[in-house]
Amino acid sequence: MNLILLEAADFMAADRVVLRDPRRLAHLREVHQAAAGDRMRVGLLDGLMGIGQIESLDTGQACLTVTLDQPPPAKLPLTLLLALPRPKMLRRVLQTVSAMGVARLVLLNSYRVEKSFWQTPFLEPAAIEEQLRLGLEQARDTVLPEVLIEKRFKPFVEDRLPALAAGTRGLVGHPGSYPACPRALSEPVTLAIGPEGGWIPYEVEKLQEAGLAPVQLGERILRVENAVPALLARLF
Amino acid sequence: MNLILLEAADFMAADRVVLRDPRRLAHLREVHQAAAGDRMRVGLLDGLMGIGQIESLDTGQACLTVTLDQPPPAKLPLTLLLALPRPKMLRRVLQTVSAMGVARLVLLNSYRVEKSFWQTPFLEPAAIEEQLRLGLEQARDTVLPEVLIEKRFKPFVEDRLPALAAGTRGLVGHPGSYPACPRALSEPVTLAIGPEGGWIPYEVEKLQEAGLAPVQLGERILRVENAVPALLARLF
Repeated sequence: MNLILLEAADFMAADRVVLRDPRRLAHLREVHQAAAGDRMRVGLLDGLMGIGQIESLDTGQACLTVTLDQPPPAKLPLTLLLALPRPKMLRRVLQTVSAMGVARLVLLNSYRVEKSFWQTPFLEPAAIEEQLRLGLEQARDTVLPEVLIEKRFKPFVEDRLPALAAGTRGLVGHPGSYPACPRALSEPVTLAIGPEGGWIPYEVEKLQEAGLAPVQLGERILRVENAVPALLARLF
Repeated sequence: MNLILLEAADFMAADRVVLRDPRRLAHLREVHQAAAGDRMRVGLLDGLMGIGQIESLDTGQACLTVTLDQPPPAKLPLTLLLALPRPKMLRRVLQTVSAMGVARLVLLNSYRVEKSFWQTPFLEPAAIEEQLRLGLEQARDTVLPEVLIEKRFKPFVEDRLPALAAGTRGLVGHPGSYPACPRALSEPVTLAIGPEGGWIPYEVEKLQEAGLAPVQLGERILRVENAVPALLARLF
């Protein structure tokens, strides 16, 4: 937690917050070993970032005086379509997506996504937001990415993706004899990353029809949790 | 497992292998749902890759006829110095390093590495090799990276690092007002990535004296498991 994420409900006055939840309190006390007088980076969810000075801290609550005067870092101009990963990986990937500044994430079905993955409680809105917040706290950001859940591949790719991808550079990460993933783009991008085992040929065709061009990242097959940071770091 | 990694001991003849270990057998049967006649990608540890055709498969053993005729993918010309991560992250990072083709990994002490991390059984040679093999099987490679363990920062950085880094582009990933991490290099690189919380200023100075120049990857602070693939994908 490189930034303490505050919510409107934490504020007692414009410059004064009280934290009472066990997670943030434990983190302040145990990881930061914070004490009265210490200054910490803070940020208001969907708002500005700045500094909080601890006025008091005990097992039940922490009181801070805060100054919020810095904008959060810019988001990547990216809509990331991700075939739904297995639940354990989903949680880490949500943190990664949020930490790296993806503006919009679409969790999408694919032939090779196991049906049971859609049953995980980690897809509930509160569970998704929990992981996204951890990513913001890690990276020092305050703005949650938008997350869309699309359980049906074909209607999404045929009916909604062309509008989402309009005006952006559309790419599909896919192993094979495709052009190398481009580098250091400044334009908006729509990028699709497949499941373990990859997109099936029908899916690559449909994504191409929607305006996404296949690109590859070399001979090595990466796990989704590595492919996401690798592709983002190369693209932007 | 996108490649079945074979060892010399698996070979009954130049083109015939028998697998008897539960891990590979279970993977063949349960993940690949393989049956006699199926063809799988295989590779000999530290040797060539190719195709194995399953001649027979039951709960006790699998017999394959193999043809090994392709070289493994090239390694990245990279020596990666990594402050020892916490044990759970160490295992994943070892897989990542191996999957992404790092030639040499140095696990290094740092002021912010907790002393207890050095006690983990995951640092035993067999445990390290297990994770590295998983990375090779994921990425389709056969050549293990070299791994060095350096429990003392100063003697390593003063006495051995200058020789290791000689003739390479030396870089330290470090947040701050440094030049951006360079892109698409073809020369050999020595890259140092710090612990959670980062290198302390003394360490950055010592790494600089050994010829490593600080570079940054943007305002966002990434976890080590994301910083590694992000930096490698940007550098190469």
